[in-house]
Amino acid sequence: MADALTAQQTADAVGVHMFARDRASKAMGMRIVAMSEGAAFLEMKVRDDMLNGFDICHGGFITTLADSAFAFACNSTGDVTVAAGLTVDFLAPARAGDVLTARAFEVVQAGRSGFYDITVTNQRNEQVALVRGRAHRMKGQRVLPGDAGHEGAAR
Amino acid sequence: MADALTAQQTADAVGVHMFARDRASKAMGMRIVAMSEGAAFLEMKVRDDMLNGFDICHGGFITTLADSAFAFACNSTGDVTVAAGLTVDFLAPARAGDVLTARAFEVVQAGRSGFYDITVTNQRNEQVALVRGRAHRMKGQRVLPGDAGHEGAAR
Amino acid sequence: MADALTAQQTADAVGVHMFARDRASKAMGMRIVAMSEGAAFLEMKVRDDMLNGFDICHGGFITTLADSAFAFACNSTGDVTVAAGLTVDFLAPARAGDVLTARAFEVVQAGRSGFYDITVTNQRNEQVALVRGRAHRMKGQRVLPGDAGHEGAAR
Amino acid sequence: MADALTAQQTADAVGVHMFARDRASKAMGMRIVAMSEGAAFLEMKVRDDMLNGFDICHGGFITTLADSAFAFACNSTGDVTVAAGLTVDFLAPARAGDVLTARAFEVVQAGRSGFYDITVTNQRNEQVALVRGRAHRMKGQRVLPGDAGHEGAAR
Repeated sequence: MADALTAQQTADAVGVHMFARDRASKAMGMRIVAMSEGAAFLEMKVRDDMLNGFDICHGGFITTLADSAFAFACNSTGDVTVAAGLTVDFLAPARAGDVLTARAFEVVQAGRSGFYDITVTNQRNEQVALVRGRAHRMKGQRVLPGDAGHEGAAR
Repeated sequence: MADALTAQQTADAVGVHMFARDRASKAMGMRIVAMSEGAAFLEMKVRDDMLNGFDICHGGFITTLADSAFAFACNSTGDVTVAAGLTVDFLAPARAGDVLTARAFEVVQAGRSGFYDITVTNQRNEQVALVRGRAHRMKGQRVLPGDAGHEGAAR
Repeated sequence: MADALTAQQTADAVGVHMFARDRASKAMGMRIVAMSEGAAFLEMKVRDDMLNGFDICHGGFITTLADSAFAFACNSTGDVTVAAGLTVDFLAPARAGDVLTARAFEVVQAGRSGFYDITVTNQRNEQVALVRGRAHRMKGQRVLPGDAGHEGAAR
Repeated sequence: MADALTAQQTADAVGVHMFARDRASKAMGMRIVAMSEGAAFLEMKVRDDMLNGFDICHGGFITTLADSAFAFACNSTGDVTVAAGLTVDFLAPARAGDVLTARAFEVVQAGRSGFYDITVTNQRNEQVALVRGRAHRMKGQRVLPGDAGHEGAAR
């Protein structure tokens, strides 16, 4: 067996592995800007087909970007983790052509529940949305095939 | 000037007017099932391009459906109203081919803030997500062109 | 062994048992108005020592009343259940002498997570706060001593 | 007229002024540990009369401590600001004798809405609760008597 991956290598490998399979995030035109242990930054350009009836970006898509960043962040350690809940506050509208960046960070882990802060900003660094995510780590499932985890199979 | 619309006629007209302009909800394949004063039901079929890296519907898209139903419900009185916040709890995964229905209802209005409950269920009537929405009614703006509102222009 | 309790008897017995031990709710002057399976109504009079620096009831105490109703509701089936999270929207202030009623209802149960709606109203039936609670049911623990649960010990 | 207060002097004066009138926070045995512009730290010892039926600190009182820190933080600039909403995640129980500290910080201000993060930890620095607060700043009202604000009366 090869040497265990470092935390950064695991985060990067999780990013590549998950993104390749994530049709939703790809269909939205997202891209990963950075991954690290407990954090992920994703970017998305607001397209015309993301606008609602008031000609601003549908809040659901702003949330989708935040939720993707959250998902990459909470799986970055290699343990399969699912989103259990979100609290979203919309701070400012996003418009066609805006480039949004979602930055997700782990705040605290309590048992198998993890809490994340995700901020969404535009290209002028104005805050567009503030999101808190709650994640649930699945027992004994690893994101990467053939990966037993840093602590081995005992999780 | 024509007679004022009834509440139901206003809700239906808002639904038609908003949906025609809502590229986001149309791109997601949503359709309006029903509109009434303070409520809206929307439907969406989970497509392959809505699946995430775990082969289940991206939570952001479930939220987007809920947020659309919320938007139609909170504008149904004809007053322009924007989503200010969402709290989402994901209860069960949705899979490709599932037909999701989001039902949004007004719970209470407090000043210009309105609170809505939105539930998302699948075709087996299983609950997929539970959403609370907070909306902010804009002063003196009407959704329908040429509509002065039931109480006239004085809003 | 005695016959199993009905759902209503269990709810009532849980109310009596928990309230007798709940120094916090008693210190706040709360009383149980009604208990049933999945629901609890509690009442509290706003005292002078519950007022904050703006001479209105501290929002934390409004939340405490809601949280107590939530706790009684989510334990009403006899399974030990703890509050995991709350989302609170404050709708109107409460003043000294107001009598607040919190009504908690189960919305949906998903695995061991339960979701509850709690409303707080005053004596004029005006809504003071809107609360969503998330509860976590503990495995195999019963509230009432010697109670094996309706389905027996197999939980 | 006297010279305008610095931001730190305003925060300190607001702390003294509000706390003197805040019967609720005093009845709970809270004390202010520190105040600064946009932040407040408060401390509370868990008393026996704060315990619920499971012999742990009532979650409502943990929330009350967080809500007090939030109130002091969001009024620290001297503008009267009220709590509009809270999202609370309970991470670990608190027990009799535990000394809890709530630290509230402004995250972002968007128009008259302000968003705050509040963490509650115990004397072993373990996280007990994670709270996000949403505040609403009242127009043209100052906390301190005779205080016109840094920008004068034009707010």
